[in-house]
Amino acid sequence: MLAEEFGREGCRVLWGDEGLLAAATCPGAHTVLTALTGTAGLMPTLAAIKAGRDIALANKETLVAAGSLVTGLAEKHGVKILPVDSEHSAIWQCLQGSKPGEVEGIILTASGGPFRKQPEDLSLVTVSMALDHPNWNMGKKITVDSATLMNKGLEVIEARWLFGLDYGRIKVVIHPQSIIHSMVEFVDGSVVAQLGLPDMRLPIQYALGYPRRLPGRLPRLDWNSARELTFDPPDTARFPLLETAYRAGRLGGTAPAVMNAANEVAVEFFLAGRIGFMSIHRVVEEVLGRHRVSGRPDLEDILEADREARQLARRLAEKLNNF
Amino acid sequence: MLAEEFGREGCRVLWGDEGLLAAATCPGAHTVLTALTGTAGLMPTLAAIKAGRDIALANKETLVAAGSLVTGLAEKHGVKILPVDSEHSAIWQCLQGSKPGEVEGIILTASGGPFRKQPEDLSLVTVSMALDHPNWNMGKKITVDSATLMNKGLEVIEARWLFGLDYGRIKVVIHPQSIIHSMVEFVDGSVVAQLGLPDMRLPIQYALGYPRRLPGRLPRLDWNSARELTFDPPDTARFPLLETAYRAGRLGGTAPAVMNAANEVAVEFFLAGRIGFMSIHRVVEEVLGRHRVSGRPDLEDILEADREARQLARRLAEKLNNF
Repeated sequence: MLAEEFGREGCRVLWGDEGLLAAATCPGAHTVLTALTGTAGLMPTLAAIKAGRDIALANKETLVAAGSLVTGLAEKHGVKILPVDSEHSAIWQCLQGSKPGEVEGIILTASGGPFRKQPEDLSLVTVSMALDHPNWNMGKKITVDSATLMNKGLEVIEARWLFGLDYGRIKVVIHPQSIIHSMVEFVDGSVVAQLGLPDMRLPIQYALGYPRRLPGRLPRLDWNSARELTFDPPDTARFPLLETAYRAGRLGGTAPAVMNAANEVAVEFFLAGRIGFMSIHRVVEEVLGRHRVSGRPDLEDILEADREARQLARRLAEKLNNF
Repeated sequence: MLAEEFGREGCRVLWGDEGLLAAATCPGAHTVLTALTGTAGLMPTLAAIKAGRDIALANKETLVAAGSLVTGLAEKHGVKILPVDSEHSAIWQCLQGSKPGEVEGIILTASGGPFRKQPEDLSLVTVSMALDHPNWNMGKKITVDSATLMNKGLEVIEARWLFGLDYGRIKVVIHPQSIIHSMVEFVDGSVVAQLGLPDMRLPIQYALGYPRRLPGRLPRLDWNSARELTFDPPDTARFPLLETAYRAGRLGGTAPAVMNAANEVAVEFFLAGRIGFMSIHRVVEEVLGRHRVSGRPDLEDILEADREARQLARRLAEKLNNF
């Protein structure tokens, strides 16, 4: 298939992997916004970095699968990785003006998704229930990840690479209103938080305007009426994938790529109605448990681990489906 | 009276106005922390500025009474005014790394004091009720100011001088838990907030360590248990002194000094059990209403306006007391 055709008025229409690579390395761009879902974002992001483009990163799976590789390559090519995920944008904003060594830890907030409190029995969750996110209007895959808290787990790993912090210094707090987008705790005990309406235009604008804040007409937080912000520790018994992500992150090497690949497959099966909601965790745990971690993987190791994990996840999911 | 005597072990004991001036201009100090209550802080602060000391300012009345004078003198002598009030410290922390023109406004949080909701009839408030602040353990004068919201009004004027913002860009929001100490709203709609336990050691340490954040062992905010932060617009019918302060601030010139002097006297009378809680507002309003504002006052104008306001406030308070 041709990766390029001419649309009307000289507009170029590109598609597929080749199209992604062409867009990622398009001449004349300073910054590439990568907003793909899943590991599909990895290769174009690497290509954009090699082409010297700053990366406005909305694709968390890229750093989850290949954080060491991507950040190392970015350093080598002198390009910046600018977070676009709302939580990481919040942390980045809170870090402005701070100095190395002043950060004690970060606190990622999580809406908790639609199943924070109910149904009590999560095996009853249907696809349409999982796609009904209370605060954010997003794609299907990330919406399911929000419902399992895997999304927060991926963000924990993403944060580790973006901000160079140990996992012990990355906390998750459930904040159902999604107004505080995340926080930084400093060595003096002071906490700085970024707040805003749940609207992705703000972090996108911040990344593209950085280091300047561009004026914007987005709706403002309204302080003229009563407002309540609540915070709870995450229920890790109910949402075990969050701890799975911490474990994969701590294992390091190929483990996060494997966990992420297994999760992508399991979510696909769930969205197709072929496995239940709780089986997403079972598939991911099983694939991660069987994987032999390679400690300092290169790109080929990561892609290979990803492929193997997907195959195994598919087999396991089909088995569960046949029950 | 001598302003100086020698205590044991060569420790110098100083007192009175002369003692304050000597402490404020003490040789060898880089920074003077002014933590007096009331207009008493003005002269030593001016002396410290003239002596080239940076000012860590915990005395809001200094900027309320003579904001233009104090900030002008600080600029002339190249000294910094570092906020120590928890709200202003919060805003200062939130502003780190931002550029001129990026601030849309600031949001000062207020606990709302002990009488936010009850008693319904504020004329029933006694001195001991007013001194029982829910979150902060402070001096008597500022605790009463918190109960009338005059404290927040003084802080609005203080913020105007510290951060150079019009009154229209300074909002007040009631936040009874005193965890978010204040916020900055930027031109893109993003809001940055500073959080911490209500403990003055943090803003003091931040001012003294600035521009570095020094590690500290203060207790941390605990995110491992449920937490609820609430926000309400201030009830200006119940606490009219907040709007009085905005009005005095907008009048400018000698008006804030006069309002502040009248408030100091009225609070003294209240603390002495000589006027009721609601009479504080009556005295302040009456004194401010009778004052002819002088637009560009020098120090003598301010001190004169302050003296006259105190005399008038005393006469009015005694009349109320005789009722």
